Amino acid sequence: MSKKLTPRNENYSNWYNELVSKADLAEHSEVRGCMVIKPHGYAVWEKMQRALDEMFKATGHQNAYFPLFIPKSYFSREAAHVEGFAKECAVVTHYRLKNDEKTGDIVVDEDAKLEEELIVRPTSETIIWNTYKGWIQSYRDLPILVNQWANVVRWEMRTRLFLRTSEFLWQEGHTAHATKAEAVEEAEKMLEVYADFAENWLAIPVIKGTKSPAERFAGAIETYCIEALMQDGKALQAGTSHFLGQNFAKAFDVTFVNKEGKEELVWATSWGVSTRLMGALIMTHSDDNGLVLPPKLAPIQVAVVPIYRQIEQLDEIRNKLLPLIDDLRKRGISVKFDDDDNRKPGWKFAEYEMKGVPVRIAVGPRDLENNTVEIARRDTLEKDMISFDDAPDTVEALLEEIQRNLYSKALKYREENTREVNSWEEFKEVLEREGGFLSAHWDGTEETEEAVKKETKATIRCIPLNGQAEEGNCVYSGKPSRGRVLFAKAY
Amino acid sequence: MSKKLTPRNENYSNWYNELVSKADLAEHSEVRGCMVIKPHGYAVWEKMQRALDEMFKATGHQNAYFPLFIPKSYFSREAAHVEGFAKECAVVTHYRLKNDEKTGDIVVDEDAKLEEELIVRPTSETIIWNTYKGWIQSYRDLPILVNQWANVVRWEMRTRLFLRTSEFLWQEGHTAHATKAEAVEEAEKMLEVYADFAENWLAIPVIKGTKSPAERFAGAIETYCIEALMQDGKALQAGTSHFLGQNFAKAFDVTFVNKEGKEELVWATSWGVSTRLMGALIMTHSDDNGLVLPPKLAPIQVAVVPIYRQIEQLDEIRNKLLPLIDDLRKRGISVKFDDDDNRKPGWKFAEYEMKGVPVRIAVGPRDLENNTVEIARRDTLEKDMISFDDAPDTVEALLEEIQRNLYSKALKYREENTREVNSWEEFKEVLEREGGFLSAHWDGTEETEEAVKKETKATIRCIPLNGQAEEGNCVYSGKPSRGRVLFAKAY
Repeated sequence: MSKKLTPRNENYSNWYNELVSKADLAEHSEVRGCMVIKPHGYAVWEKMQRALDEMFKATGHQNAYFPLFIPKSYFSREAAHVEGFAKECAVVTHYRLKNDEKTGDIVVDEDAKLEEELIVRPTSETIIWNTYKGWIQSYRDLPILVNQWANVVRWEMRTRLFLRTSEFLWQEGHTAHATKAEAVEEAEKMLEVYADFAENWLAIPVIKGTKSPAERFAGAIETYCIEALMQDGKALQAGTSHFLGQNFAKAFDVTFVNKEGKEELVWATSWGVSTRLMGALIMTHSDDNGLVLPPKLAPIQVAVVPIYRQIEQLDEIRNKLLPLIDDLRKRGISVKFDDDDNRKPGWKFAEYEMKGVPVRIAVGPRDLENNTVEIARRDTLEKDMISFDDAPDTVEALLEEIQRNLYSKALKYREENTREVNSWEEFKEVLEREGGFLSAHWDGTEETEEAVKKETKATIRCIPLNGQAEEGNCVYSGKPSRGRVLFAKAY
Repeated sequence: MSKKLTPRNENYSNWYNELVSKADLAEHSEVRGCMVIKPHGYAVWEKMQRALDEMFKATGHQNAYFPLFIPKSYFSREAAHVEGFAKECAVVTHYRLKNDEKTGDIVVDEDAKLEEELIVRPTSETIIWNTYKGWIQSYRDLPILVNQWANVVRWEMRTRLFLRTSEFLWQEGHTAHATKAEAVEEAEKMLEVYADFAENWLAIPVIKGTKSPAERFAGAIETYCIEALMQDGKALQAGTSHFLGQNFAKAFDVTFVNKEGKEELVWATSWGVSTRLMGALIMTHSDDNGLVLPPKLAPIQVAVVPIYRQIEQLDEIRNKLLPLIDDLRKRGISVKFDDDDNRKPGWKFAEYEMKGVPVRIAVGPRDLENNTVEIARRDTLEKDMISFDDAPDTVEALLEEIQRNLYSKALKYREENTREVNSWEEFKEVLEREGGFLSAHWDGTEETEEAVKKETKATIRCIPLNGQAEEGNCVYSGKPSRGRVLFAKAY
C-alpha cells in the first residue's frame, strides 16, 4: 500500500480518509456505521480519556455505569428529548435465536419477543434520571456529580470515521443539584474543563459560547459549547455542556426535601465529549505527510532509529543510545527504540511521520564518531544535528515547544479565518471564497437561522460568551440585532 | 435504611445482596438483568482495570475497540461457538422508531427493518477475526496482541448483581500467532497474569487448571482457568484463557504467508475477566459488618474522622491532622478526611466499615492532649492507640499487613476446605456437610461428569495444572483414573 496521501488542497475529504487508514487509527467494520478503532488510534483516545478523567475527578466527579439498554417508554417522558433521540436508533426486539427446524439456519425466535422494546442508548439522561429517583430524597443527597465512560449508538446512514459513526465512544456527565444557580455553575464549569482540555492537551483553540435555541440539545434549557475551526475552513463542535433545568426531574419525578423541609424538583446538567475529538485532532494539526500529534497525547513521543550496515554497528549504536533512552524515560517521555532489522530506516522514517510521532532521533556510525544525534521534529519537519550530550534537554524542551507551536499555529489560522461580515452579499461571498468563521449580526429568530442554513449550508456555531454587546442589523433580515454570532459550515 | 446485614451463617445469599446494596456497590436497574454500578463499586472496578491494564501492556498488549453489534451470520461460521453464544442474546431487528399515526405513541417503524439482524456482542471472537482477516497477510504482521475493554450482553433470566447479569463489563484479549506453540504459550502466560492479579491485588488465592472438555469455552481447544473458593464453600471461576487453535482462522479464512512463502492458517487465543470479579472480591473477604477491601483496591485506603463537640475543637483537630494527612498522601496513600458536620462519628464509623475502608483514624480532644491517634483496621476490627508521630509509618505498614492478612486468611480457608474424597458416599457426604473443593478421581468421561452434576450439582471446576499423576479409580464410576480433579458447587 502506498503511503502517499492525497494532498489536502486537492481533496480534503480523501486526505482525511486516507490518513485515518494509513496512520492505523481506525477503519470501517462490516457492520454498517460501526468503526474499528485500531491500536494506534485507541492509544491516542486512551490518553485523552486519562487526561479528561483526571480533570473530572479533580472537579469532584465520580464514575459510575448505567445500562446499555433503555426501555422505549422512557423516551416519551421528555417531549423534546424524544424528538431528538428516539428516532434513528438501534431497537432490540427479541432475546433469543434458534435453529430453524426446516433449514437449520439460525433465526430469530418469535417466542422470545420482548414485551417492551429496548433502545440501545443514544444518550443516557432518561435511564440515569430514572435511577437518580432512587438516590435522591433529601438535600443531603445532593449534589450528585457522576460521569460515565460508555459506548452509544445513533443510527447514521452516511458515516465518516470518528466524525459520524453509528456507534461511538464518549463520556457523559450527569449531575443533580439543589438549586438552579448551582446547576448553571456546574454546566459552565464543565465547559471550562473542556476548553482547558482542548487548548492545553489537544492544542486546539476553541470559542466558548452558547447554542441558538434551534441547535440546543434535545431537552436542554441552555447548551454551552466549544467550537473549533478545521484546516478546510469548516467548524467542528468539540464538546457540549447542558443546563437541563428541571426537565428530567419533572419527567422522572425526582424531588428532594430542602433544608426548610419543602419538596422541590431537582436541577440537572449533562455534558459530553466523544471520539469525535479524534477527528478534530486530526483535522487541526495534520499535514500531507500524515498525522501530527501534540506531544501530550502522542502514545510514542520520541522514536529512535539506528542507522547501520552491519549488525555489529547496531550493537555499538545501541550501547551508545541506551543511556540516552533511559534518561528520556526517566523524564517521563515515552520512547520507542526501533531496532527492527526487517525494515529499512527510510521505511521507519515514513512510518513515524505518518503516525505523528512528534520527535525522531536518528543515529548512524558517523554520529558515533562525532558524538552527535540527528533530531527531526514532526510539526515543522525540520532536522537538526546536535551534540549527543545535549539530547535529553533538547528533546524535552522540543516536546514542549511542539505542543506550544501546534496551538499557536492553529490559533493563528483561526484568527486569520474569522471575519466580520456586514451584508448578506459579503456573507455569501466570504463563506464561498474563504470559509472559516463569519462573525455577523443575527436577528435572533429561528426563521432567519433556517433561511441562512438553507441558502448557504452555514449554521450558527455559537453565540460567543465573550461577545461584545454591539447594536447592529441582522446580516440576513436587516432587523435589529444586539450582538454578533459565529456562523460557519460545520462537520 | 438499617445498616445491619443478615449474618452470613443465617442466609449467605441475603447477606450478599444486602451488602452490595448497603455498601453502595451496585443495584438492579429497571431494565431486566442490567445493573447500575454505583460510584463506590465502579471506583473499585476502575482500580482493577488500571492494575490489569498495566499488566497487559507490560506483557506487550495494546488496546483497541471493535463494534458492539455482530451480524447474525457471523455466529454460524464456527459450529461450537454458535451453540454456546448465539442463543440467549439481544437481537437488534430495527433501526428506527416513529410516532404511531393513530395513537401518537412511539412505535417501531416496520419500514426500518434490518436485512440481517444484529446481535449485541456476547463475546467478540467472530467480529474480531473477521477484522483480523484484513490485518494479516504475512508472518511480519504477527503476532497481534490486542485487548478490548467493553460491555457485553448475554441474556439471563435469573440474575445476581456482579455474578450473573445480562449486561456486564469485561476485558477480552484476542491474539493471533504464527505457530501453535506461541499461541499456547500466550494462553498460559495470560493465565499467569490473571493468577498474579487475583493473588496480589484481589488477595484471592486461586487454583490454576484446565477445564474438562464439557466446560470449555465454545470454540476452544483448551480452556485454562483460575478457580477461587468463596466463604460459603462454593467455587467461582475468576478468569479464563483459551487456546482456540485454528478454529476462528478457519471460520473467517485468516491465513498468512510464513517465512518460507507458504500459506498457513493463523493460531488464536482469547482471554477475559469481568465485573464478576467484584462478586469474588466481596464473597472472599467481607464479613457481617460489610465490605472488606484489600488495600491495593480500596478507593479510600484511610478514613480520618475527627471527634469533637464544639466547632473550635474541629479546627484544632484539623490543624493537628493536616500534616499527617499530607504525609500519608505523599506516600501514595489515598486518604479521606471526613469533617462533614452533618454526620456523627458513630454514623461515619459504621459507614466506612460497611464500605470496606481498610484503615480508620479517629482523633478527639484527649488525643490532642496525649499526642495520640486511634487506629482501627477493618479486616480484624482491632483498634489501637498509637503515638501521633508514629502514625504515618504505622499506617503504611498496616495497609501492607492487611493486604497480606486477607490473602493468608483466604488461603487458610481454602486449604481447610479442600478435601480428598475416595468414594461416592464420601463425595456426597462431604459435599453436603462441608462444601468446598473435593479432590477426587474422575474417569475422564462426559457421562460421569454429567451424572455427578445431576445428582449433586457439583461440577468439575478444573484439572489442576500442578496436579500429581496418581493412579486411582473414578469416585463415581469406579473406572480407572490417572489423576484427581477438583469438584465443587459453583457460582
